[in-house]
Amino acid sequence: MKQNRIDRVLEALKKMGLSQMLVIDPMSIYYLTGVQVMPCERFYGLYLRTDGNHVYFLNRLFHVPEDVGIEKVWYSDTDPVMEIAASYMEREQSLGIDRELKAGFLLSLMELGAARQFVLASSAVDDTRGIKDAKEQEKMRISSHINDLAMTEFKKLIRDGITEREAASKMLKIYQSLGADGFSFEPLVAFGANAADPHHMPDETVIRPGDCVLFDVGCIKDGYCSDMTRTFYFHQVTEEHRHIYDTVRRANESAIAKIRPGVPLCELDDAARGLIAAEGYGPNFTHRLGHFIGLAEHERGDVSSANHQKAAPGMIFSIEPGIYLPGDTGVRVEDLVLVTPDGCEVLNHYPKDLEIII
Amino acid sequence: MKQNRIDRVLEALKKMGLSQMLVIDPMSIYYLTGVQVMPCERFYGLYLRTDGNHVYFLNRLFHVPEDVGIEKVWYSDTDPVMEIAASYMEREQSLGIDRELKAGFLLSLMELGAARQFVLASSAVDDTRGIKDAKEQEKMRISSHINDLAMTEFKKLIRDGITEREAASKMLKIYQSLGADGFSFEPLVAFGANAADPHHMPDETVIRPGDCVLFDVGCIKDGYCSDMTRTFYFHQVTEEHRHIYDTVRRANESAIAKIRPGVPLCELDDAARGLIAAEGYGPNFTHRLGHFIGLAEHERGDVSSANHQKAAPGMIFSIEPGIYLPGDTGVRVEDLVLVTPDGCEVLNHYPKDLEIII
Repeated sequence: MKQNRIDRVLEALKKMGLSQMLVIDPMSIYYLTGVQVMPCERFYGLYLRTDGNHVYFLNRLFHVPEDVGIEKVWYSDTDPVMEIAASYMEREQSLGIDRELKAGFLLSLMELGAARQFVLASSAVDDTRGIKDAKEQEKMRISSHINDLAMTEFKKLIRDGITEREAASKMLKIYQSLGADGFSFEPLVAFGANAADPHHMPDETVIRPGDCVLFDVGCIKDGYCSDMTRTFYFHQVTEEHRHIYDTVRRANESAIAKIRPGVPLCELDDAARGLIAAEGYGPNFTHRLGHFIGLAEHERGDVSSANHQKAAPGMIFSIEPGIYLPGDTGVRVEDLVLVTPDGCEVLNHYPKDLEIII
Repeated sequence: MKQNRIDRVLEALKKMGLSQMLVIDPMSIYYLTGVQVMPCERFYGLYLRTDGNHVYFLNRLFHVPEDVGIEKVWYSDTDPVMEIAASYMEREQSLGIDRELKAGFLLSLMELGAARQFVLASSAVDDTRGIKDAKEQEKMRISSHINDLAMTEFKKLIRDGITEREAASKMLKIYQSLGADGFSFEPLVAFGANAADPHHMPDETVIRPGDCVLFDVGCIKDGYCSDMTRTFYFHQVTEEHRHIYDTVRRANESAIAKIRPGVPLCELDDAARGLIAAEGYGPNFTHRLGHFIGLAEHERGDVSSANHQKAAPGMIFSIEPGIYLPGDTGVRVEDLVLVTPDGCEVLNHYPKDLEIII
C-alpha cells in the first residue's frame, strides 16, 4: 500500500469530519494500494479508517499479491457480501462514500444500517489524486513526450483517398513503436464537417481538399495517460478557417498564460471563452475548457465556469478550447499542463501554428 | 422507443408497487429506446412513469436521433443536472432506482428529496431483458453460430512455439472475416497451469506438449453477444487430465439435460456441482455455473446456488462448469442455452469430446 497517499486521504477525511470511507473506483484503489483489479459487476472496495484499521474487500475470483499491507476480507459469489462489508463498519458514525459506488450496493448498506449517515466523500481521494507527486509528474511528461512524437507520425498518414478509420487503425502500432503501452482512449480522427462534433468517432469519410484534420489522441505509458489535440488543414485553407484556427490557438495560449497557483480554474475557462466570444464564436465553443488527467484519461476536476477551485502545484489538466461550425468545420487545440510553484509547464511540445498538409 | 418492452417494464413496476423508475444502465436504455449513448462520467437517464409521461435526460454532448418518442430534457456540463432531474419526479411517491446509478447522483437525489423513498428496482428491467423475444433469439443464434465457426479457426492457430498473446492477437480478424462486428469481451487464451486461473489474461507463455489450451471467447453481431469455452490438449494428455476433462464435459451435459421451464436455476448449478464433487473436485469448481447474456456479455441473473429463480422460455444463459488445479491445469466447457417451452436449445454446436491438437 502507498502509506503516504493513504495518509493524505485520511487527513482530508478528518477535515470533512469523517472517520471512515469506502473507496470504490478501481483506479483510486490502485492509486492507494498499487493493486489493480477489474471487478466488473462484482463488489470491490477499500474501506479506510482514520484509526488505521483498513479493510480490503475482495471476491475470491480477484487476484491480488499476498502482501498488500491491508487486512483482506474475501467473499464468494454466493456470499451476502454487503452484510459482510457492513459488519466492519462503525454504524454509529457517518460513512464517506465514493461517488462510483453503485446504487445496488449503496441501498443495501443503507438498508443494513451500516452507518449513521452516508456522505459523498470522493473529494478526499480526488483531491489527493489531483496533486501529482514528482514521480507521477515525470511519468506524465514521458507519456506526453510520446504523444508529441506520435503526432508527427499521425500527420504523415494523411494523403489523398485516406479515410478517418484507416488513419485511426494505424495509430496503435505507431504508439507501440514509440514505447507506449496502448491508447489512453480510442483516437478521435475527424475530417471536415465531422470535426464539428467534438465526440465524432472515425468512420469511412474520405479526406477532401480544404478539410480540417482533427486528431484528439493519447497514449498510456507506465499507467499514466496523455491527451493532445491538433487540427491541420488538407491541401488548402480558407481565410475564415484560418481565422477560426488562430482564434482557437490564441484561446489556448491565453488560458495557459494565466496559469499559476491560486488562480481559480474558472478564470482559465473565462479567458479562453472570452477570447472566442469576442470573435463572435461564443456559441460554437460548446464544452468546458479542460479536465484533470493522470491514471485515468478523465480524472475528477474540470476547468470550467462551474469550478472555483484554485490551481495548485502538482495539478495536471488539459486546456482544450474549440470552435465547432456544424456542417462546415471544427477546430480544437489541446495541451496538458502541469501547475508549477510559479506558473505552469506545458507537457506538450508539438507546434501549434497552423500547418497545411500538402 | 420500443413500446412493447417499456410496457413490460411498467407492468413489472406496478407489481412492485412503483409508479416511477430511473433507468441508468446505457444498455438497458438502448434496449428500451433503440438509442445508444456512451455517457462516461456524465449523467444519463431514462425516467419511466406508469402514467406514460416518460423523460429522457441528456447532456448536450450526447447524440440521439430527433424522433425517439420520449420527451427529451437537455442539460449542459455546468447545469445543476440533478436538480433538473429531481424537478420531474413525484416527490410524494417512491422512486425505483437502477442498481447502476452511481452514489454521486443517488445521494444528490436523496438530498434534494426527489422521492419519498428510493427502492432498488432494476429487476423490472432485468427480468424484461432476461426474456428474449423471437428476433433477439435469432440474433443470439447467429452470434453463437459465428462463434462455433471461429473456434475451428482458433484451434488451428495452436502450433509449437506460439504464445497465448500471439494466438489472441489473431482472433479479431478471424471473427471479422466470419461476419462478426467485434469481440463481446477480450478473448481468454490460457495454456497449461495458466488455465487454473478462470480469469487469466493472455500473456507471453509459450505452449508446451501436454498443456491444456483453454479458449473462452465470444463475438458481437448485430448487438448480440456470444460466449463459449472449449478446452483442448496439446500433443498429449495424461489420464488424470482426460478424467478431469470428461468430468467437466459430463457436468456441462448433465446441467443442460435438466433445463426446462420451471426448473429453479440453482438446481442446474447443483447438478453440475454435484457431479464434479462426486469425482473429488468440488473445491476446484470455484465459480457459479453460468450467467445471463444478450446485449451485454454478462447480463443480470446468474445460474448459481443463490438463485432460486425458475427457468422460463426465452431465457438465454451460459452453462460453464470448470475444474481448476493450481500449478497444473484448468478445464472449462461452456455453451449458451435458450430455454424453450419444452426444454432447451443449445446455441453452440462445436463438439465437446476431448480433442488433442497434434
